[in-house]
This record gives sequence, structure tokens and C-alpha cells, in this order.
Amino acid sequence: MHHFEFKDLKDLSKIYRLNLINSVTGYKSANLIGTQNLNGVKNLAIFSSVIHLGSSPALIGFILRPTTIPRHTYSNLKATGVFTLNTVTKDYIKDAHHTSAKYSEEISEFDYTNFIVEHKNNWNAPYVKGSPIQIGCSYENEYYIKENNTLLIVGSIKELYISESLLMDDGWVQLDKENIITINGLDGYAVPKLLNRFPYAKPKS
Amino acid sequence: MHHFEFKDLKDLSKIYRLNLINSVTGYKSANLIGTQNLNGVKNLAIFSSVIHLGSSPALIGFILRPTTIPRHTYSNLKATGVFTLNTVTKDYIKDAHHTSAKYSEEISEFDYTNFIVEHKNNWNAPYVKGSPIQIGCSYENEYYIKENNTLLIVGSIKELYISESLLMDDGWVQLDKENIITINGLDGYAVPKLLNRFPYAKPKS
Repeated sequence: MHHFEFKDLKDLSKIYRLNLINSVTGYKSANLIGTQNLNGVKNLAIFSSVIHLGSSPALIGFILRPTTIPRHTYSNLKATGVFTLNTVTKDYIKDAHHTSAKYSEEISEFDYTNFIVEHKNNWNAPYVKGSPIQIGCSYENEYYIKENNTLLIVGSIKELYISESLLMDDGWVQLDKENIITINGLDGYAVPKLLNRFPYAKPKS
Repeated sequence: MHHFEFKDLKDLSKIYRLNLINSVTGYKSANLIGTQNLNGVKNLAIFSSVIHLGSSPALIGFILRPTTIPRHTYSNLKATGVFTLNTVTKDYIKDAHHTSAKYSEEISEFDYTNFIVEHKNNWNAPYVKGSPIQIGCSYENEYYIKENNTLLIVGSIKELYISESLLMDDGWVQLDKENIITINGLDGYAVPKLLNRFPYAKPKS
């Protein structure tokens, strides 16, 4: 096995370290976060850091990089109080990746990709039309992570749209039924296939 | 599409809501966290909440459920200051899931699964022998998430072992080369296949 000691990690080139450290924790979720500013300009950005925080209440979290450079997702969700999460499927990985390009605030990523805005239920943030899991979230709180100047944003799930083909009888959502993808590192996109589900684990006696 | 409004989510049965809300953010990472207590008793537990926090310094995070019930991972990493992350491959999903069973503190999950303890570099926590990505982390900090009484644990990557077959020339780690798995919801295990990697995205002009 290749062994990196602490000093080796510090001495790596920036790009090598970004690729390496972004990969080693394993696969990440892929969500397009949709927001709009107070003038109605839409923003759409791919995030690989969205996590489940809890089910009751239904809470999610995601990490935002340092706010010293413009972060339209952040300014928009603070202005309107809401955002959407839209899952990404196999046929849209190229467009999803393109939302990470740095457009200026008056430009909408919807205009430079094949993603189409969907408005519904008077939610003050755009959904991505056709995405098989769409979640309307409100901004709840943020935690400043002082170790590296990032923010953990906490959102509350206020409404949820799921393609019927994904939704099983017990509430479990089988993600591979619509080729929902996962992210490997900074720029790798992979499509999983279900292996198995297991019952609640009990100690062996 | 199936539409759940906020009230619907609150009114769901506990199990249905757990399955649903644990699934909708997308695929999750799969890591076995290895720790030991001050008597040397080993603990191994599957976590689906490990996330990348930053590359420089190399930081990871994970979420711990309320500490009102025994959490051996937490008490051990607080006592020793360290833990390991060990990625999970296709052939070990059943054993990985079994580490979520609630054994008492004096029992090691290594004794009730096919996982074998590996000690190396005098690290004060057990690695999982044969896991193609093994990370030695130190405990750095914790953040109390008051919205649902969880903790975000922040760890610093101190050393790293990676199977040579996974490690590409630019530091990117191609996870599907050794069938590293991902978690779907609470209890689903899936194996991804790489679709593509894309270059750094630049605005279209």
C-alpha cells in the first residue's frame, strides 16, 4: 500500500492533495442546490457535501467553502430563507459538473445548461425539472467550523417530491432505479447498482 | 411524483420516515470507524456520515447521534484522541452492516465479524486489515448541532494508506477499482461504476 505520513500530506502539490483528500472518505452525494436572489435571478450549483442530519425533524446539512469569494448559493439562501435540493441522474452529469463554473451573479446556470427551471407550490427557489428527487428546504442555522473557516449549513426539509418508481413500500428510496449518481473526489461521477439491503442488526449470541 | 408536504412528513410512522429521510439526500460514504478504549478493547462501527471537510489542512467530519445512549466510538476517541477510517468493499457489506448491532463495551465487533485488527505505525486505534483505504485521524473538535442534539466530530487526517491500484497519477483515487461501496438509506449497500471525470469547469462565453 502507498503510505502517506502527515508530513507527506502537507508537502504534496495543491492539486494532488485536493484530488487525494477529496477522494479518500469515499463516495459522496450529488445534489444541485437551486436558489434565487431577490431580483429573481436563479442560481444552480452542484454540491457533493449534502448529508443527512436527522429524520425527526427532517434535517440536512452541507458544507460551504470560505465566504471570502462570492458564493451565490449562500447569499441567495440567506436572502430568501429557502433553497432546493435536486438529485442528479446519469444523463446529466456533464451539465451538473458545469454548474461549478464561476458565473457572475446576474447569470443563471439554467441558461448555460440543459436544466430547466420548475416552479411549484409557491416555493421561493427553483426546482430542476425532471429530477426524480426534489426537496424544498428552509435555512435553519449555520455553524462556523473554525478549523478551516468553512460553514455547516443546516436546512429543514419542508416538502419533498419523489418519483413513484423510486419509492418502496417501507419508505426506502431505491436510488439505482433511476440511475442516480454519486461523486468520487472532485470531478468523478459514478453510477451505483444495489447489492443488498439488510435487516436491523442484532448482536450474535 | 409522490408529494410529501411538511405535515405529511411529521405524520409518517417512525420507520417509514427513517427510511425515507435517510435516502433522499442521495448516496453516502461507507466507513468503518475503528477505536479502542483505555483497556485496549477494540470497537468497530459502520458510519454513513463521514464527509470531506477540507484538504489543507486535511479534515474530515462525521455526525454522532445523541449521546444519551452508549456510543463506544465516541467515548473511545475522546479517551485516546484518535480513530481510524477504513473503507468498505463489496465482499464485506454483511459484516460491515453487522457492526451496527449494539454490543456491550467489553465486546469487540472484530470478534463477531470477519474483520481482522491491524496495528501499524504505533497508532492507538485499530485498522481493518485488507481495507484498501485506511486513514489515521486525530480528534480535533466537536460542534453541537442544537437543532437535533447531534454532534459534528471534526478529525484531522494524520496518515493514510491506499492500495496502489486505486491511486492515480494526479492523486485522484478511483474508488471503483476495488469495488468500494456506497450506502443507500439506512440499510442498502450499492457498488458504483465510474462514468466519467471532467476537467475544471469554466464559464461558457
